[in-house]
Amino acid sequence: MYVNGDYLPEDRATVSVFDRGFLFADAVYEVTSVLDGRLLDFAGHAARLERSLNELGMPMPMDRDALLDVHRRLVDENGIDEGLVYLQVTRGAADRDFAYPDADTPQTVVLFTQAKPGLADNPKAREGIAVVTIPDQRWGRRDIKTVQLLYPSMGKMAAKAEGADDAWMVEDGAVTEGTSNNAYIVRGDTIITRQLGHKILHGITRKAVLRLAREAQMKVEERAFTVDEARGADEAFVTSASSFVMPVVRIDGQPIGDGRPGRVATRLREIYLDEARHTAI
Amino acid sequence: MYVNGDYLPEDRATVSVFDRGFLFADAVYEVTSVLDGRLLDFAGHAARLERSLNELGMPMPMDRDALLDVHRRLVDENGIDEGLVYLQVTRGAADRDFAYPDADTPQTVVLFTQAKPGLADNPKAREGIAVVTIPDQRWGRRDIKTVQLLYPSMGKMAAKAEGADDAWMVEDGAVTEGTSNNAYIVRGDTIITRQLGHKILHGITRKAVLRLAREAQMKVEERAFTVDEARGADEAFVTSASSFVMPVVRIDGQPIGDGRPGRVATRLREIYLDEARHTAI
Repeated sequence: MYVNGDYLPEDRATVSVFDRGFLFADAVYEVTSVLDGRLLDFAGHAARLERSLNELGMPMPMDRDALLDVHRRLVDENGIDEGLVYLQVTRGAADRDFAYPDADTPQTVVLFTQAKPGLADNPKAREGIAVVTIPDQRWGRRDIKTVQLLYPSMGKMAAKAEGADDAWMVEDGAVTEGTSNNAYIVRGDTIITRQLGHKILHGITRKAVLRLAREAQMKVEERAFTVDEARGADEAFVTSASSFVMPVVRIDGQPIGDGRPGRVATRLREIYLDEARHTAI
Repeated sequence: MYVNGDYLPEDRATVSVFDRGFLFADAVYEVTSVLDGRLLDFAGHAARLERSLNELGMPMPMDRDALLDVHRRLVDENGIDEGLVYLQVTRGAADRDFAYPDADTPQTVVLFTQAKPGLADNPKAREGIAVVTIPDQRWGRRDIKTVQLLYPSMGKMAAKAEGADDAWMVEDGAVTEGTSNNAYIVRGDTIITRQLGHKILHGITRKAVLRLAREAQMKVEERAFTVDEARGADEAFVTSASSFVMPVVRIDGQPIGDGRPGRVATRLREIYLDEARHTAI
């Protein structure tokens, strides 16, 4: 893995206890998928990283080409055919203080890979997943991809406790998103997903999937939808960089539509994976 | 400092990149003040630590006596007369996954000290501090003392940018608390501070100060108060483990009362410090 310029074995990869990523969750991250040994939508992830950093008053720790080189070297050295590259950037290590340290404090940059054989040919995509709904208790700026991931982790555990795969978070009666993915329902021939803003992550896969849906002449409505709308939907799905397009077939124990992966989600997964493979670098 | 059983110099103190404190902010902390080389309200901090861990499904990493021994050894070895002991417990290091790792994953336990000469005889306490108000954008469980401290850090920077010392966070028109302290106003002979619940941290110093205020026959109302109430208050103050009782003399640029530290805050600081020194261990 990569830590601040060094390539290290994972068991030797450490950060200072005084790192603000550890003490203050003062850090942002990205996860880029790898198929056929190549990176999916690297440009999208690099752009979002820069946006997240900018929202927190941090610069990019290196330019996009250098970042791409690190990603590629890690993919090569770890022989990743299907998997993920995780990237985290923090404000660096400094004497503990809520106030940010001097701007010349070196940022911490960490990257590592995870091999995920079967990432694309995931049997879950043929069965669909079950979700439960939970209140959205996260902070107000979910558009900044910070490592403040405790509540999504708690949500994942709440889902597991009910025998489900994931949780959809609900605020003011409307679904915001899944714990680590954007949420969609399909009613008739219309795909409905929450509009962008501070309430949800600006998914890289969301952006690609909506573009591909529109290109395929599907109708897209970007708006909040309620849990009741989701229960009564014809189908549902989620998107993320690592699950691509994943059908959702149960919500709070009740089947959605006929309880099988829907036509739209299945088609979008095919279209997305096809394009992602062809544009991977 | 202390890291997982070892006493190390600070520059050698590291945690794994895979620590869930670093990747997921899956960690809680405590800060205990030291005066005259002794710990203030250690029992209170230990009890709150156990509560925070319990809310997140984590056990205490060691019993309270062992924890006290580590605190004391660090205070001794670092020659801390006035200062802080910082403690952080995480769910440990594991392959990155939102779902919690196996329950037998060793937790990470980190403690370090910060010397703060003049902690008690702080000139700020004689001048009072200025606060600005900002929206409270934190997650919904502020009663759990997690390291998800990015928004409080941003708040501190927003205050500095306006030439103030700290920010008071406002939700639904009412003040919740300061970025790292509980907030109070005084109207007539009544001390008003937000009631306990999920919206605020259950301050150890808050508890002691309210007890001491009641013992001194002061009236205490535990309820939400608005920014307008604060602007019109006779005085205001904050409490925390490291600032004790700190008068607030300006809010959003406007003086509170006569713009000088108030009688109640000044008196409570004296009473609190006196008792804290006498009960320190």
